[in-house]
Amino acid sequence: MARVRVPVPVRWSDLDAYGHVNNAAMLTLLEEARIATFWAKGETASGTNVLAGGPDASSYTLVARQEIEYLAPLGHSHEPAVVELWIGRVGGASLDVCYELLSPTGQLAARAATSIVMVDADSGRPRRLDDDERRALAELEGDPIEFRRR
Amino acid sequence: MARVRVPVPVRWSDLDAYGHVNNAAMLTLLEEARIATFWAKGETASGTNVLAGGPDASSYTLVARQEIEYLAPLGHSHEPAVVELWIGRVGGASLDVCYELLSPTGQLAARAATSIVMVDADSGRPRRLDDDERRALAELEGDPIEFRRR
Amino acid sequence: MARVRVPVPVRWSDLDAYGHVNNAAMLTLLEEARIATFWAKGETASGTNVLAGGPDASSYTLVARQEIEYLAPLGHSHEPAVVELWIGRVGGASLDVCYELLSPTGQLAARAATSIVMVDADSGRPRRLDDDERRALAELEGDPIEFRRR
Amino acid sequence: MARVRVPVPVRWSDLDAYGHVNNAAMLTLLEEARIATFWAKGETASGTNVLAGGPDASSYTLVARQEIEYLAPLGHSHEPAVVELWIGRVGGASLDVCYELLSPTGQLAARAATSIVMVDADSGRPRRLDDDERRALAELEGDPIEFRRR
Repeated sequence: MARVRVPVPVRWSDLDAYGHVNNAAMLTLLEEARIATFWAKGETASGTNVLAGGPDASSYTLVARQEIEYLAPLGHSHEPAVVELWIGRVGGASLDVCYELLSPTGQLAARAATSIVMVDADSGRPRRLDDDERRALAELEGDPIEFRRR
Repeated sequence: MARVRVPVPVRWSDLDAYGHVNNAAMLTLLEEARIATFWAKGETASGTNVLAGGPDASSYTLVARQEIEYLAPLGHSHEPAVVELWIGRVGGASLDVCYELLSPTGQLAARAATSIVMVDADSGRPRRLDDDERRALAELEGDPIEFRRR
Repeated sequence: MARVRVPVPVRWSDLDAYGHVNNAAMLTLLEEARIATFWAKGETASGTNVLAGGPDASSYTLVARQEIEYLAPLGHSHEPAVVELWIGRVGGASLDVCYELLSPTGQLAARAATSIVMVDADSGRPRRLDDDERRALAELEGDPIEFRRR
Repeated sequence: MARVRVPVPVRWSDLDAYGHVNNAAMLTLLEEARIATFWAKGETASGTNVLAGGPDASSYTLVARQEIEYLAPLGHSHEPAVVELWIGRVGGASLDVCYELLSPTGQLAARAATSIVMVDADSGRPRRLDDDERRALAELEGDPIEFRRR
């Protein structure tokens, strides 16, 4: 199992009046890491763009569910935050992306999971993950997140 | 038990390129409903502003955890979306806010829960909910959300 | 000449770490007022929905230019901010929307103007404002904004 | 005169339902470039962090005015957009930051200027730019933007 590490810059406007990244903006940071990792757009250095996706693709991914635990406030910095990302579960037409969101100094700010459904763009219906996708996802598989507060 | 119904306008910029309210923006809509309901700011028509809160208060609330299931895409409309909101659990220093997010036509777009911790502004430490708060919260108590996909 | 008054709720996440509505979020508030006024979606109370628009219409409007002066910080409030809006100029295929953005207590927070171009959805080219549109816009015409700092 | 070139990632949620970076989000991209360039946070490779700034500094900068011309739609890409930035005017207590916002392929998407006022954090009043700041700003001085549509 290998985690993908994606640097994600925090924007000044992600902070709210408490001076920390707003709870909803945290999901935006995770979304950026997910897109950087999974949307195929030609060759990339990381080699991890294993899923079709993006608005023009023949398939797209739908966010079906998210769960996030906020563990420490995340402030603004010139250095990007880091999202560590792996696959916690692969189902028939869906998968769970798991994340740890770290501050630039390595503090764990949040732990989260997103359930994603593969959708056929023509029919708008879920479609099964194919063998190529399964093989690629397998390389990123790890243990599901254990949430403390559930 | 009584649910609070809060109309929350969807903004054009909440939509992403799929033409639906972005997954992270959904949490912003819930946050607006939560603030409208719980932040005390003088008398209000709804009478439900039961918790201290807001950036200048002696206590503030911290979002510790969120869980959301996306059930139908939410588009843009001149009419506001509606957040129905109730209390699913009251603990020592924390509570769970539960929501159903409805489109202007009444379609269930999302189901969610937020765990909130009461924090003393001076010490920055969690503080117990007091009796007044418990009494007020009791009026909004209902069954916790049952998430389908967990 | 008549100004349109549009209440626009400020969201908690519009504030940045200075505790005021972020400079870019101010344009979002103006956008909401503009859409509420100009996008035709059936009958409305205000009667001012004079332009075609919205993502499904046969014409759409393109923002070509914006200018904004920030005059006072805008904080968070349970009461909505108010955007006063009028037409400062009508050209062949374009118009200038002028705004004053007021806090809930009536303080002038910003003064702004947006140049909008009417675009034919099929061709993607600018198209002339028609007579009906000109008549409707004329009712909202007023003096262009005079910016202090230009 | 030297322009500073700042890569600024476009986020998926910056796009609105037209599939392009929303007009207000464009100002957020410019803000990120401005902060990366001007907020002093220790040594940086670019050597251009010439102004005090940031929420904890003894001075802060206030955005007094912005003007932006939108020249081409900006889409989503794995590659960052690029903001080219220079100083168009230095006044007593204020300055104008000028920008050209380029797509990853180098297309000019917007041209903009921001008037910034230096403010003393204690008094909340404008304060004069000091000699060090003037020297540093001089290295970035260039011609003010000429807006086409004014």
